Amino acid sequence: MIVVMSPNATKKNLENVLKKLEKLNLRTHLSEGEDRTIVGVIGDKKIIANLEMEMMAGVEKTVRITEKYKLVSRDFHPLDTIIDVDGVKIGGEKIVVMAGPCAVESLEQLRETAQAVKSCGAEILRGGAFKPRTSPYDFQGLGEEGLKLLRKVADEFGMKVVTEIVDRSDLELVENYADILQVGARNMQNFQMLKALGESKKPVMLKRGLSATISEWLNAAEYIMSGGNENVIFCERGIRTYETFTRNTLDLSAVAAIKELSHLPIVVDPSHGTGRRTMIAPMSKAAIAAGADALMIEVHPHPEVALSDGNQSLTPESFKNLMNDLNGIAKAVGKTL
Amino acid sequence: MIVVMSPNATKKNLENVLKKLEKLNLRTHLSEGEDRTIVGVIGDKKIIANLEMEMMAGVEKTVRITEKYKLVSRDFHPLDTIIDVDGVKIGGEKIVVMAGPCAVESLEQLRETAQAVKSCGAEILRGGAFKPRTSPYDFQGLGEEGLKLLRKVADEFGMKVVTEIVDRSDLELVENYADILQVGARNMQNFQMLKALGESKKPVMLKRGLSATISEWLNAAEYIMSGGNENVIFCERGIRTYETFTRNTLDLSAVAAIKELSHLPIVVDPSHGTGRRTMIAPMSKAAIAAGADALMIEVHPHPEVALSDGNQSLTPESFKNLMNDLNGIAKAVGKTL
Amino acid sequence: MIVVMSPNATKKNLENVLKKLEKLNLRTHLSEGEDRTIVGVIGDKKIIANLEMEMMAGVEKTVRITEKYKLVSRDFHPLDTIIDVDGVKIGGEKIVVMAGPCAVESLEQLRETAQAVKSCGAEILRGGAFKPRTSPYDFQGLGEEGLKLLRKVADEFGMKVVTEIVDRSDLELVENYADILQVGARNMQNFQMLKALGESKKPVMLKRGLSATISEWLNAAEYIMSGGNENVIFCERGIRTYETFTRNTLDLSAVAAIKELSHLPIVVDPSHGTGRRTMIAPMSKAAIAAGADALMIEVHPHPEVALSDGNQSLTPESFKNLMNDLNGIAKAVGKTL
Amino acid sequence: MIVVMSPNATKKNLENVLKKLEKLNLRTHLSEGEDRTIVGVIGDKKIIANLEMEMMAGVEKTVRITEKYKLVSRDFHPLDTIIDVDGVKIGGEKIVVMAGPCAVESLEQLRETAQAVKSCGAEILRGGAFKPRTSPYDFQGLGEEGLKLLRKVADEFGMKVVTEIVDRSDLELVENYADILQVGARNMQNFQMLKALGESKKPVMLKRGLSATISEWLNAAEYIMSGGNENVIFCERGIRTYETFTRNTLDLSAVAAIKELSHLPIVVDPSHGTGRRTMIAPMSKAAIAAGADALMIEVHPHPEVALSDGNQSLTPESFKNLMNDLNGIAKAVGKTL
Repeated sequence: MIVVMSPNATKKNLENVLKKLEKLNLRTHLSEGEDRTIVGVIGDKKIIANLEMEMMAGVEKTVRITEKYKLVSRDFHPLDTIIDVDGVKIGGEKIVVMAGPCAVESLEQLRETAQAVKSCGAEILRGGAFKPRTSPYDFQGLGEEGLKLLRKVADEFGMKVVTEIVDRSDLELVENYADILQVGARNMQNFQMLKALGESKKPVMLKRGLSATISEWLNAAEYIMSGGNENVIFCERGIRTYETFTRNTLDLSAVAAIKELSHLPIVVDPSHGTGRRTMIAPMSKAAIAAGADALMIEVHPHPEVALSDGNQSLTPESFKNLMNDLNGIAKAVGKTL
Repeated sequence: MIVVMSPNATKKNLENVLKKLEKLNLRTHLSEGEDRTIVGVIGDKKIIANLEMEMMAGVEKTVRITEKYKLVSRDFHPLDTIIDVDGVKIGGEKIVVMAGPCAVESLEQLRETAQAVKSCGAEILRGGAFKPRTSPYDFQGLGEEGLKLLRKVADEFGMKVVTEIVDRSDLELVENYADILQVGARNMQNFQMLKALGESKKPVMLKRGLSATISEWLNAAEYIMSGGNENVIFCERGIRTYETFTRNTLDLSAVAAIKELSHLPIVVDPSHGTGRRTMIAPMSKAAIAAGADALMIEVHPHPEVALSDGNQSLTPESFKNLMNDLNGIAKAVGKTL
Repeated sequence: MIVVMSPNATKKNLENVLKKLEKLNLRTHLSEGEDRTIVGVIGDKKIIANLEMEMMAGVEKTVRITEKYKLVSRDFHPLDTIIDVDGVKIGGEKIVVMAGPCAVESLEQLRETAQAVKSCGAEILRGGAFKPRTSPYDFQGLGEEGLKLLRKVADEFGMKVVTEIVDRSDLELVENYADILQVGARNMQNFQMLKALGESKKPVMLKRGLSATISEWLNAAEYIMSGGNENVIFCERGIRTYETFTRNTLDLSAVAAIKELSHLPIVVDPSHGTGRRTMIAPMSKAAIAAGADALMIEVHPHPEVALSDGNQSLTPESFKNLMNDLNGIAKAVGKTL
Repeated sequence: MIVVMSPNATKKNLENVLKKLEKLNLRTHLSEGEDRTIVGVIGDKKIIANLEMEMMAGVEKTVRITEKYKLVSRDFHPLDTIIDVDGVKIGGEKIVVMAGPCAVESLEQLRETAQAVKSCGAEILRGGAFKPRTSPYDFQGLGEEGLKLLRKVADEFGMKVVTEIVDRSDLELVENYADILQVGARNMQNFQMLKALGESKKPVMLKRGLSATISEWLNAAEYIMSGGNENVIFCERGIRTYETFTRNTLDLSAVAAIKELSHLPIVVDPSHGTGRRTMIAPMSKAAIAAGADALMIEVHPHPEVALSDGNQSLTPESFKNLMNDLNGIAKAVGKTL
């Protein structure tokens, strides 16, 4: 349920509302807009069903939320949430770019990539240390060694680190090195891991599952938020369809959907979303035009020898060209790059 | 097969090449670029398999095309094709906008819509006279009466007409009134109709089938082109996926794919592609950013009483706002609106 | 709307009901069960909305149908419909088998196949004379020559003919030779052709579209039935999914769905449904176990040289083995082969 | 790589082959057929690439496996694997039935269900103690209390227990109570959990992911087998498609595919696969006809008050009727129930 306070409600009015709700053991979530405050309420359904708040001083009206997700809902929190990743802000006017190799392979590879992408404006270094691979016989990532390299190189170039966590028992380990914890598509409904991430202090980037609906995705984020971690970033990375020309079908309408239904920011990953190098530039432009807050792009200094996903990685040079092209689009939608 | 002439080939060299191919009953397709001419060759596979052209004067090399589609392929015709719809050019620097109601309902409805969209810059009037409907008991369109209204109103406002043809026996009738013949998603592989359209002089807009692959779509266009009609325009209108939040999943990566594989222009229809009014603006922007040549948008003066697809139609006012917003995006990709 | 007559309603009661409905220009559809008669009513929605039939003598109750399809609905017609194809009955206790090559290629090919399949119990000869092919450069079928061969060979072996019609202008031609008119997956929503088939006297086999929902499929059948042709047979032939191991995903739950929602019979085509020879036998058994009324199986005397779909065709020998295996399954579900 | 021994190879020949492979640090997997032994070889790809075994005494030939999965492949192990679940054998002549409620709710519910299903022939009791739910606010299962109830009731009625494990840290706990460890669709590619299950001594039932290809599914099983646990059972539970009439699209062709590509047994779950009570019986029959080794069916004494999935649960009475009907189908494919 949402309790909408009237524009001229006093501080005292609000306190009384919150006190009443707390007495009933209900959790509240404040969202202070320019002219009114909105109180989101979650907890025991039966108690909420019988709540009568309209007669309290300062309450304009109450709205029942029928969707199962509450905390992620824009109804609950009408204003855009901006997530502060140790100084880099995702969800505001500035488009954030995350770039780097699919998998961390070596110090040289990572350093070469980081230098190149940072000089073009990328602020967050991406790279997989734990790789979820279809076959047990494929390269599974460097593990903690990879995390150390990410941290070391990111610090060297003044960047932040986003990297995937594939098991909840690795949480403490990955938290030690990463600034954003990435949940991969295959783990979007690994609910035990989501619950664990709900207790982390680090922002979580939640990739959309291979065939997850928008509603399932929002509910997966609700698992994290209901655990107490309010810093959730969505990442559209393509869905599975019948089409085989592209690796996945990048669903940019998901950007518009998330912006409509939720207050949380959204990143687009055109590298996994298309699986084709030539499509990364047009889809990056389209993503920003559609309203995405950030991009996540695979860059490899030598894609032809990459240990994974080489044919969807940009070279540093083509990444540079792309960043130049994106400027105009960002401006056209009232943002900066 | 493609015969690539060398930059310094003479006119005589080219004539000899063409003469040789014609003697073998092969069809040729000329594509004259800035510094070299390319000759596309189609016909009996066995004859082509034994062709030896490399030793002829002026021939630089030959390339075998492995894809089944030839005439639609960018290999065959490297430069962008611009289609001239009686003065309105689709595929060039200017983004073309097609707008109008889902179905033609009355003279008033059409006139009110045409005036509104024309004043904002739309050049082509859309509207269905023959409606393919899931149920036989739903409104099937006004038929020829609808075509007459479209022509009358378009002429009144100096616009062109695009409208759907649902059966090849209607070809002559629809040609009499329309400037562009639209093939709907359900008929994308109605091969008999495609063959008939191959003999028309009017441009054809070929919507992507509900679950058509890029390759099937290109081959469907090849049916039209191989019949002799070179004026084919693709239209992405969303594909069918598991997602239910949107009516279809608008696949903007199809824009990038078509631009890479073919020389023909592509339109995006965000109205059918999303089925949600609030998504039309962000998806229109994204479409242009991705490289689309034109947009097709449903506008209805009173969406709440529309006979079909009311909840995916813009009002004239929101259409006006959209057109303003699109300007900046068009500029950012080097085009005009 | 459905008017359910009470078990002890008299013939006169029924006549009065029908008379009243006819006066209102409503169409009626009688379904006489063992102990009661059901009158299906279709026509002007507003008139039906105001109908009050419950007080008429002999009327037990009325039921409003919310689905758009009426005539195909089991609510309208509770008992199974058995379709009589010139003596061969589809929809009853005997499982009917349709077999033959994908495309008619020659008299020898067809005769060899017909002899083989007839001797194992197949009663209907299948074969394409008009082939809808993805590429305009692929073999498009022998046309009328193919129809003549089908008729000649079927008559020779005492079989019936099922063959595809790809354009409504071919209707008279195909009717002359075929016993069942097949609508292919790509034409399931070619509504103009469905309307034309509604006026034919020949049974129509309606294949499910590549990505048609059960509801769209039922509505497509309603187009045929509402035109006056009550002899419609469904054919499940696999739907398009993300899976690439099989050509399509054969959806046997569609058999159960059709049996629940409609009174019309259903055929399963495991050849197109899987695209893999080794899967035809297990899927044929499963289809019958699920309740299918008939099977449609591609058999080619020499699959390795077939002009189309060779790798999904059985040899006459493997077809024979399959027919033997099917006997037990048919018995287990109370049918015969 | 597979080393095929000749029919007259001696024991000594085989020993020499194994010795040579072990010296090279390659792992071997023996499969002894009626007339020849097959040695599967996995390990360092470069070493295998240079292996020359054909000249060794007793070796008939070697075959290179191009698929990434090895141990699950039928090439590696041509005969059907029968998995012994503490006396109940899955994969042999007898069809095994697993039945029980979706979620364990109480001792009474479980006991009432177990008694009913056991008396009809079900040998394995199913029931979720840890439930993966889309929303964090839905019933998440009774946890260890549920496991205890399952064990208690199963022992009471002489049944085995299959139940889901949702996190690898629960492995020891679930192993204490369950006879088969179920991996749910959402965790099919939770590779860390699969690796942990590879070290368990208990059989694992691996459900197919919501949009997993056959190949991804086989590779997921390879994760478990390559960890050392050879007792893997596949479970087809429906895939996600565009169709909304059913909860999922039950893909029975997956049964035929698994039987062709792998030696491991496969279970079909028509309850989740269709989500509709009326479809469970026809799909159960079809599954057995297609070659399934076992069925997994939701039964609830009072489906109308079930805490989850009530509308896809059979009542004990309808379960009894189903078991009777399945007898004939089992016989028709040479099995018993």
